[in-house]
This record gives sequence, structure tokens and C-alpha cells, in this order.
Amino acid sequence: MDLLLRNVRPLGGAAVDVEVRGGRIHALHPGLDPGSMPVIDGAGALLLPGLIESHTHLDKTLWGLPWYVNEVGPRLEDRIANERRFRADSGHDAGAQALKLAREFLAQGTTRLRTHVDIDTEAGLKHLHGVLATRAALRDEMEIQLVAFPQSGLLARPGTAELLDEALRLGADVLGGLDPQAIDGDAAASLDLLFAIATKHGKPIDIHLHEGGEEGARTLDLLLDRTQALGFAGRVAVSHCFCLGDVAFARRAQLLERMARLQVAIITTGTASRPVPPLKECVQAGVLVAAGNDGIRDAWTPYGRPDMLERAMLLGLRNNLRRDDEIALAFDAVTSAAACACGFSDYGLAVGCRADFVLVEAQNIAEAVVARPPRRLVVSLAKVVAQNPATIEGSTTGA
Amino acid sequence: MDLLLRNVRPLGGAAVDVEVRGGRIHALHPGLDPGSMPVIDGAGALLLPGLIESHTHLDKTLWGLPWYVNEVGPRLEDRIANERRFRADSGHDAGAQALKLAREFLAQGTTRLRTHVDIDTEAGLKHLHGVLATRAALRDEMEIQLVAFPQSGLLARPGTAELLDEALRLGADVLGGLDPQAIDGDAAASLDLLFAIATKHGKPIDIHLHEGGEEGARTLDLLLDRTQALGFAGRVAVSHCFCLGDVAFARRAQLLERMARLQVAIITTGTASRPVPPLKECVQAGVLVAAGNDGIRDAWTPYGRPDMLERAMLLGLRNNLRRDDEIALAFDAVTSAAACACGFSDYGLAVGCRADFVLVEAQNIAEAVVARPPRRLVVSLAKVVAQNPATIEGSTTGA
Repeated sequence: MDLLLRNVRPLGGAAVDVEVRGGRIHALHPGLDPGSMPVIDGAGALLLPGLIESHTHLDKTLWGLPWYVNEVGPRLEDRIANERRFRADSGHDAGAQALKLAREFLAQGTTRLRTHVDIDTEAGLKHLHGVLATRAALRDEMEIQLVAFPQSGLLARPGTAELLDEALRLGADVLGGLDPQAIDGDAAASLDLLFAIATKHGKPIDIHLHEGGEEGARTLDLLLDRTQALGFAGRVAVSHCFCLGDVAFARRAQLLERMARLQVAIITTGTASRPVPPLKECVQAGVLVAAGNDGIRDAWTPYGRPDMLERAMLLGLRNNLRRDDEIALAFDAVTSAAACACGFSDYGLAVGCRADFVLVEAQNIAEAVVARPPRRLVVSLAKVVAQNPATIEGSTTGA
Repeated sequence: MDLLLRNVRPLGGAAVDVEVRGGRIHALHPGLDPGSMPVIDGAGALLLPGLIESHTHLDKTLWGLPWYVNEVGPRLEDRIANERRFRADSGHDAGAQALKLAREFLAQGTTRLRTHVDIDTEAGLKHLHGVLATRAALRDEMEIQLVAFPQSGLLARPGTAELLDEALRLGADVLGGLDPQAIDGDAAASLDLLFAIATKHGKPIDIHLHEGGEEGARTLDLLLDRTQALGFAGRVAVSHCFCLGDVAFARRAQLLERMARLQVAIITTGTASRPVPPLKECVQAGVLVAAGNDGIRDAWTPYGRPDMLERAMLLGLRNNLRRDDEIALAFDAVTSAAACACGFSDYGLAVGCRADFVLVEAQNIAEAVVARPPRRLVVSLAKVVAQNPATIEGSTTGA
């Protein structure tokens, strides 16, 4: 759909009109002539690129269902077992739940999203089929990447490798992994298998690394060794990467230097309750940092909201980012840096980029992150997917 | 104002009607007869007691003003100096700003609030007069406690003690303090002076303690010594108390044991970027933990929202509270525990309590904290102070 968006301030800059033509930003200039295009009046609001969720688990969410009373034990193993039990009991419909939450993300301005999808020898590919259906249903409205994610481990559960292989054949975009040492018990062998599957399919890797301290750092070293040796530079992301939060400065600097050189990205949630990769230090070392919510309202955690401005705010709080120029780093983690980390193309507010953007009432980026204002307008894949009439000052008219 | 609130679920329990008479909760039972009282239909929503903000700085806020571009340096001293400079330049109106933010707190269900008010030899009692006027203006709508707070230090700035003395004489409810070692340079002497002023006026103490690790623990010991020796048990609160987050377990246990015995409360913001008192451990040791936002949208920090459910959520994230029974602890910190810590009386949802309550659409307390739903109805001092028609299913009618 072609349209002219009048009087908006891209990233807080001077007011311009934005012409959308053929699915892209065709022109970005004050005083554009709409010709016969429909016009939306932006009333001087702040224009942001479509927001990006880099790490969530759509298939797990209980969004929109009655409140799930959480009585789960404290260990990772408790949570994995509890979820498996819950699913067996509840007949959880991963595809329908994924669709609900994805639509909510879209309404809040997230136009591209990477979701991990549980694959294990118990559930098989059931979740994958559900989320593939969700992706298909939303094909014209948002871009969804699927990560084939071995939630119960890879070596730990024989038969999982074959399922991951099949998942990539069926259309998963990225190969996932989980704690090669802590869960699989043999980081080198686990990573060898992971890279072999990714190599076979020519797919990038996004691995959950919860392992802390030196245990995690050793796994990260092994991961970087393989990234380098097997030519995976620029195609590996490490989710959480908690170990970077609690190794000593010199060790972290050494790991970050390798990550920067091999273009290995960090995807963080900015977890408030444990050490996390320090955002400024990582960015200053040249490492891409993207952000995600992780699970939202599921059997693991009750928290989370499908709002990437709120996630940026939490990242800001976690990293004590108070200056406007620091808050911009948190914003990057849900926009530009996320696009690079996940490999989303044609991203941004420049001429030629895909027409994905969000309009909010705020002075600038820092205020948008801190205040998380209602989304006035969301355009995704050049389509108006959400419009909040209550907050729109202007009007939609054909010229 | 007398009224009957029909069909609400106190704290998630069975549905009842609530009769408000003579400013108090007169009855709490299903099927009450309204007689000639006005009736509000609660439509089965969740009834919460009025929320409590235990630590904020109303006088500092820039709420409702154009975005303040923060370019401040990283140290505490930078922030104090920056704020002083900003105020001199901007003609900041502490009273008017306090009023704006207090009203927003009230609209979000906060019916009682403790605010620290800057007092130093530069600003004198200007902020105090402003916030006293705000308190008077809102006298019939919410309860505000003022803490006379020496933001630039006590010993560090001769003349401050006299100003604090005068502030308490003029109506400040609580004596504040700030880092007796780190700022004043002599914890024992600073605390002696603080307790002398509090004793003279018979007022409780609420001291900011940012000092970390063993430095803070030593100050805390000195504070507890004086609390015990001077008969201040039950009348001292320590705000932030960061040291409890980074001393070893045994040292913390020893401090907590003394705090519990002397009924010294902790008031925390659940700061995500540094060690904080671990909520569950403190509560299990028998120490009261209340929560506050600290400053909101000011020259120190851009963050914060006058919503105590959001503050409880942040406390939950910081302390990794996932189970419903754990999230209840975060909720306590903005309700019952806060009332005890600050000495707000007649608090709660029982018969005889002051009629302060909030209605939200949620299944239970955990969902209210996590989802932070819009406030349907806020009753404070038996007065309907906020009502959101868009979310009210029922209607307000005279019987």
C-alpha cells in the first residue's frame, strides 16, 4: 500500500514527510506532494523504525489465558520438568498461543521478531508446526524468524539432533542450542554436533548460554574456536551469555575482543536478578548487543510484556543508563543492533528501507524508551497494522 | 462520602460488597443493603488496598515538563552538583512540580506517600514550603509524609542542622539523613547529631544509606547502636541500604537479626544496576521491607513512573520472584509492609480501616503486579478520586 505520512520527526530530528511506495520508504523530505496517495497526518510525532524482538519463546506463552499460578521450584531442572508436565496436562496449543502473542507484539510496534521454538524427543516437532503456521498466517504483516531450540538438551536426549535436522529442513531459519556444558555435559562434543547440523543446512546459530563464570567462559571460548575454524563469522549469536557478567574485567575484555573480531552477537534480556553482559562495555568493544524479552507470561516466568520499548527501558535500568546518549544504546538493542544481530535486512528509516515504522508521542528516543508511550500508528511491510484513533491528532484522508 | 462498592474480590478472595461509612470500611460482606447510599458496581474486579509510595522525591521531579536532556557525569558528586546548577538556571518550582506528580500517583492508586524534601544551605527551606503547600492542597485526597532531607550532607554543610530543626518545627514528619560516612566523613558524629535533632522533636528517622559493603555495614552498626541506646526501636528506616546487598551472608544475617529486633525497616527501590538488600532473605529474617521509586523523571534519573504496581514488578524482577507466593512479598512492599515501615495507620481492607482502595481487572495479586492493569477506580480518604469509565463495566447510580 502506498501512502504519505506527513509531519513526523524520524528519531527526533526535524519534521519530514515520508512517502511509502512499492513497500519501501521512497522519499523522506519536507513538503512532499501526495498526488493521489492516502495521507496520514503524523502531527509532529516521533517516528521510530519498526521495533525488533530478538529473543522470545512465542510457543511457550500463556498470554490471554487465565492466570497460571506459579508454584515451581527454583532450579533450571525444576522449571524444565514443570513445563513438560504442564504441557502434558493442559494440552497447550503452541501455534494458537504464538499467534496471540505475535499479534500483540505487532500492535506494540514490533515488526520483526526472532522466536525460539521448543524441540525435544517428547514434543517432537509439534511446536514447530504450530509456529510455522503462525508465521504463515502473519506473512503479510510481520517478519518472524524461527530458531529450532533443543529445550531439553542435544546430547542429553538422543534423537534430538535428527529432530533439529528435520526442523531446519521444514523451514526453521536458525539453529538453536542450550548450555553445552551444564546441560549436555560435554561442551566440545555438543558444539561439534551443533556446528555440523548448522553447516549441513547453511544456517546461522543462536545458542542459549546460561552457564556462569569461568564455566561459561570456557564454553564461549570453544564456541568462538569453532566459529573461526568453520567460517561462521557473522552468523553466530549467543543468547544471555551470563558468563560475561561475572568473569573478571581482563577475561571479559579478551572474550569481547574475539567476539567483535568474529562478529558474534550478544542477545540479552538485561536480567535484573543476576550478572549480565555490561551493555556499554560490550558495545565499546565493538560487539553487537541485541535485546529480547525471553519468555512472556509462561510456565517459567510470569513477567514480560510484548513491548520492546519496555524491554529497552529495563535494559537501561539494568545498566544504569541515565544520559540520553546512553539510553540510545538500549534503543539500538531493540532496533538497529538487533537487525544486524539477527540478520534482518532492509532495515531502518532511510530511503530504500522496507516500510516498517512506529509513531509515538515523545520528544526524542530517550523519552520514548523511558515513557513507553502508546503506539499511535504501526506500519509493517508497508501496511497500517495498528492505529490508535484516540491518540491520533490528525486524520486519515485520501487527497 | 458514604458508598457501597458491590461485587469486588479483596486481594483475590471471594466476591463481597464493601460499605464505606464515616470515612471507613464499615462492612465487608456479600449482599449488603445499600439503603440510600450511592452504589458502584465493581463487576467482580480485584480490590486492593490503597498503594503506598515509601520513598520518592516529589520536589525534584520534572514530570510534565519538556524532556530534560541528561548529560550528567557518572559520580554521586556530579549529580548533586548538576542538580544544584540546574535549579539555579531553571527556576525550578518544587511545590508546583510536587503537586503534579502527587496527583499522578493518586490517579494510579497511591493513597499514601512518603517524600524526601531537599534541605540545604543553598535552597534553604524553599522546597519544604513548596511541598507543605502541596500537602495542604491534597489534604482531603491523600496522605503525604514529608522527610526533611539534607541532600548536600549534614556535617558537610554547616548550617544544615539548624535548617532541619526548623523544618521539623514547620511540620516535616520525619528526619532524613544521608551517608554519614561517605558524605559527612564521620559516621559517628553525623549520626549523633541526627539522633539529637530527632530526639528533640520526637520524630522518626529515615536515612539514605548508599554506602556499600563493609563501609555501609559499619555505618549501619553505628545506626543500630544509637537506635537501641536512644530508644528509637520501631522509629527508624534505612533507605536503599545497599550494603546489605554486598556483604557476605553471615555479616548480613547478623545485621538483619539486629534490624529485626530493633524494628528498623528497609526501604528499597530494587535498583537493577547494583547489589540491593535481598527481599526474601530480609523478610525471612523478620525485617520490614517497603519499596519506593526514588526520584521520578528528574535531573538525576529519567526513569520511574508514579505507579506502585510497576515498582512492585521491578522489585519482583530484581529479586527473581516468580512464584505467586513470592510476588506477594513484592506486593507487600507497596502495601502492608510499607504502612508499617512508614507508620501509616488504619491501613488495610479490614472493617474499621480507612477507606482507601483501588480496583483493577486482574485475577489475583500476582497478576496485578505483573500486568499493572489500568486503575478502574481509586477511593482515597473515602472519596472517589479516580474513575476510568472506559474500564468500568458497571455503573454509578443512586439507589
